[in-house]
Parts: sequence; C-alpha cells; structure tokens
Amino acid sequence: MPDAARVSLNTATVRARWSLRQCIDGCARHGIGGIAPWRDKLAECGVAEAARMIADHGLHVSGLCRGGMFPAADAQGLQAALDDNRRAVDEAVAIGAACLVLVVGGMPSGSKDLALARRQVEDGIGSTLEHARACGMPLAIEPLHPMYAADRACVNTMAQANAICDALGPGVGIALDVYHVWWDPDLAAQIARAGAKRLLAFHVCDWLVPTRDLLLDRGMMGDGVIDIPAIRAAVEAEGFSGAVEVEIFSADNWWKRDPDEVLRTLVERCATVV
Amino acid sequence: MPDAARVSLNTATVRARWSLRQCIDGCARHGIGGIAPWRDKLAECGVAEAARMIADHGLHVSGLCRGGMFPAADAQGLQAALDDNRRAVDEAVAIGAACLVLVVGGMPSGSKDLALARRQVEDGIGSTLEHARACGMPLAIEPLHPMYAADRACVNTMAQANAICDALGPGVGIALDVYHVWWDPDLAAQIARAGAKRLLAFHVCDWLVPTRDLLLDRGMMGDGVIDIPAIRAAVEAEGFSGAVEVEIFSADNWWKRDPDEVLRTLVERCATVV
Repeated sequence: MPDAARVSLNTATVRARWSLRQCIDGCARHGIGGIAPWRDKLAECGVAEAARMIADHGLHVSGLCRGGMFPAADAQGLQAALDDNRRAVDEAVAIGAACLVLVVGGMPSGSKDLALARRQVEDGIGSTLEHARACGMPLAIEPLHPMYAADRACVNTMAQANAICDALGPGVGIALDVYHVWWDPDLAAQIARAGAKRLLAFHVCDWLVPTRDLLLDRGMMGDGVIDIPAIRAAVEAEGFSGAVEVEIFSADNWWKRDPDEVLRTLVERCATVV
Repeated sequence: MPDAARVSLNTATVRARWSLRQCIDGCARHGIGGIAPWRDKLAECGVAEAARMIADHGLHVSGLCRGGMFPAADAQGLQAALDDNRRAVDEAVAIGAACLVLVVGGMPSGSKDLALARRQVEDGIGSTLEHARACGMPLAIEPLHPMYAADRACVNTMAQANAICDALGPGVGIALDVYHVWWDPDLAAQIARAGAKRLLAFHVCDWLVPTRDLLLDRGMMGDGVIDIPAIRAAVEAEGFSGAVEVEIFSADNWWKRDPDEVLRTLVERCATVV
C-alpha cells in the first residue's frame, strides 16, 4: 500500500477547481510526493513558471499529459500533430517529467479506417521518437479502453502497445491505467511482456457500476469493481517502482467536491485499497 | 449487400413499441425474411403461440436472445442460472431458432474477481451444453464490448469465445455483433480461427461518435464509424451464409420512431452500407 510520498496527483483529478499552483500547494498540504500535469495547466502559468514551482516544492513529475493525437485526414494535419508532439516533448523535458504520456488519437472525422489510423499512430510515434530520444524523454503509450477506439485512441490493448514498442525500439514504453486495461484477459501476460523497462507509468481510478458517462464518470479507487491491488502487484512484480498516479475524470462527483477532500480521500484510498 | 429476405429483425430494435405479433407483421410488410426474438417477447404471448405465428409467416429465426448470465455469488444462484438456461434452450427449440445467443454475464454484485466469473461462465456453458446437444440446439457465445465486462458479459473478445469453444467442443459457437468487436486488432485472425462452423450469427448496428450512453445509444448502420462491409466480408469469406440480424438499442432515437420507418430504414441500409 503506497504512502502519500509514493502517490502522484494527476491534475485532471481536480481540474475543474484548481490551477497548477493550487495543485502543487495541495500536494504539499497532503504530503503527496508527485504530480502529473496536463498541458492546459502548464499553458495557464507558462512552462518555465510551472517548472520552477514544481522544482521549488521538490515534487516528482510522474508524467506530462499528453502528446499523441497523431491520425489526421491529410498531410497538413499529420505534420501539425508531429509539431505539437515535438513541443510536448520539450515541455516534458522542461518540467523534468519521467515520461510524456501519449493518448494516440482515434480516426479522423469521417473515416472508418481503423487500420490506417493505427498505422498513422505508429508512424507518428516513430517520428516523435527521434526528438524524444535526443532529449532523453521516454514516450509512454497509454492504451485506452476500447470504448475510445473511434475518437480518442486506437491503441486499445497492452498487446498493441507492446507491439509498437517491439517495432520502434528503445525510448518508448507504456503508461498502464487500470481503468483502460482491467478487463483484458491477456493483461497479466502483457504486463510480463512489457517488463520494468517499458512500464513507465501506473495510473489508478476505478470502474463504477453503473458507469453513466463514457468519459467523465470514473470512480475513486475502492468505489468500483477493479481489483487494483492485483494489477499493481503484477506491475511491481516486474520491477516497476514508480509513482501511483491518481487520475479521475468525474464531472458529477469528485470534480464538484472540495479539492482538499479529494486529495485527502485519494491518499487514504491509496493506503488502503490500491 | 443483403436484400431484405436475408435480413433478420432482432426484436430489441423495436422493443419499445411493438409486440412479437407486430414485429412479425412488420417483417411481412417489409419483406424481411428473419426474426430474432428476445425472451420477453415470447413471454408476452406464450412460447407455443410465438412458434405458431413465426411458422405461419415462414420466418427464419436467426437466434433466440438470450441465455447466459451464469456467474453468481452462491451455489443457489449458479443453479438458478443453469435452470433458466435449460428453459431457454427449450424455448429456442420450440421456435426453431438457429441458435441460442448467450450473453454470458458479468461479476456478481460486490465481486471484483473477473477471473472467477470467467471460470463460472465456462462451467455454465459446459453444463448447459449437455442439454443443448441433446436437443440439437447450438449455443452462440456473444462476446460483448469490454465496457460491459463488469455487469453484462465477461467474455469480451472473439479470442475468449474461441478459447471456450476449443475447450468445450461441438455444439457451441459464436454470435458476432459488429458493435462489440469492431475495435479488436485481433478481429480478422479470430474470425478466421472461428471459421464457418463456429460463426452462428452475425449482428449489425453502428458505433456512434459521440456515444451518449453505454447501453442504449447504438446507431443505425451507416450512421457510425464501423466498417461493416469489411467485417461482413471477413465473416462470409469463412463461409458464413446466415442472416444479417439487425439489433439496435437506441432509447433516444430509433425506439422513439414509428417502427415501420425503422424497418424501412434498416432494410435500405442493409442494401447499401452493410
């Protein structure tokens, strides 16, 4: 059971109420050792100021969210995505992130060609990887739940992510979020296949029954059906020793609460049910 | 492109407005050659009367929906599920169904043990299979989208369904619904692995972007992002020659429309975009 120093706050968890500075101060108040900002929070205060604030508080940065969104309908769109990913790598370097998390993107509007989108994703990661390697910034592919295959990420299993890592070589790994992969009958085998070298981030929240919204109804750890300790044990058995990053999209519940209550709760849950 | 005689109406598509008799009359009006009733529609009029009406109209029965829901918290619950599945087999025989579709069930309330639920499903299908074989009624495992893993079906991929078929032998196959499997990077390989002998039913609807409800926001073929003709071609390349069964759960759209408009539309879409 991780103590608070091992926990990382993904800013999405309190994004409706707190700026990056408030997130950092909140981590300090609750003894939370790490943070994983989304780029919108960096943009609010500027990357340099964000980097300074994070460093001043001695926070570990378990990841920057996010790069990705590679597929596009035309060459101009593909290039724009590559340019944006290059900037994302630079931002991740600036704040000392352990990795840049990639939400790889779905099919461009109007397309039904999932295989093409998947090829564009692999090509896009490959192109971004050159710059990322030069900067020493690991890229972490986050397989997203299959319910996001159309519009958010066409990498939907650990097996796909592992296959891309196989194809592209060093410098690219995986961000495993229990919400996205808990259902996968092949999960244990694919965690073992990934191994410590590829397991770059470990995200937690919970799957609620019922789930009322495809995107914004994720649960606090312990409130749903995911056997989080079992997945964490599998990841740590491979040698993963990074942060337990808490990322909860919850428009109608946690986003409406006092963020200090949210942080108090997630620290307690990490100590008891993760 | 299937003509109407090749199409089968799953009664869920118009369930909010039509009884089984109305569905049968509607199929006759629109030249639809098949029907796939849910058991609630049989219960309304009685199985014997349902069988008589279907036979009188010369409709092909592409499947009975549904058996399954095997996992349970205790022995009593497991036995109740087996008893219900035995009745479902008998009803499928009574109406001359091509198969009994199995929605296998998720985790019992309070459980986080997905592996146990999956074992209970395989055991339950195995037990049901004895009676089904004696009756000559094929059981069709329907892999459901991973977003239903918790509460509806813990068989979420064609690979899982194929593995159960491998383990249990003749008499059990697969109902492939494009909505549940379109995202699967392993789909083509698993359709080939299944082959004609296991491909017992082919269900169509479409995945909408955005999808506003996990259960009741499925689209009419052509309104979403699934490359249905490609999946149908893969299934038919294996030798599948059964019905194209249209099953659309759509609380806020198609269920609210005049059912004759729904049937007219689905026949036209089957001829153009399936």
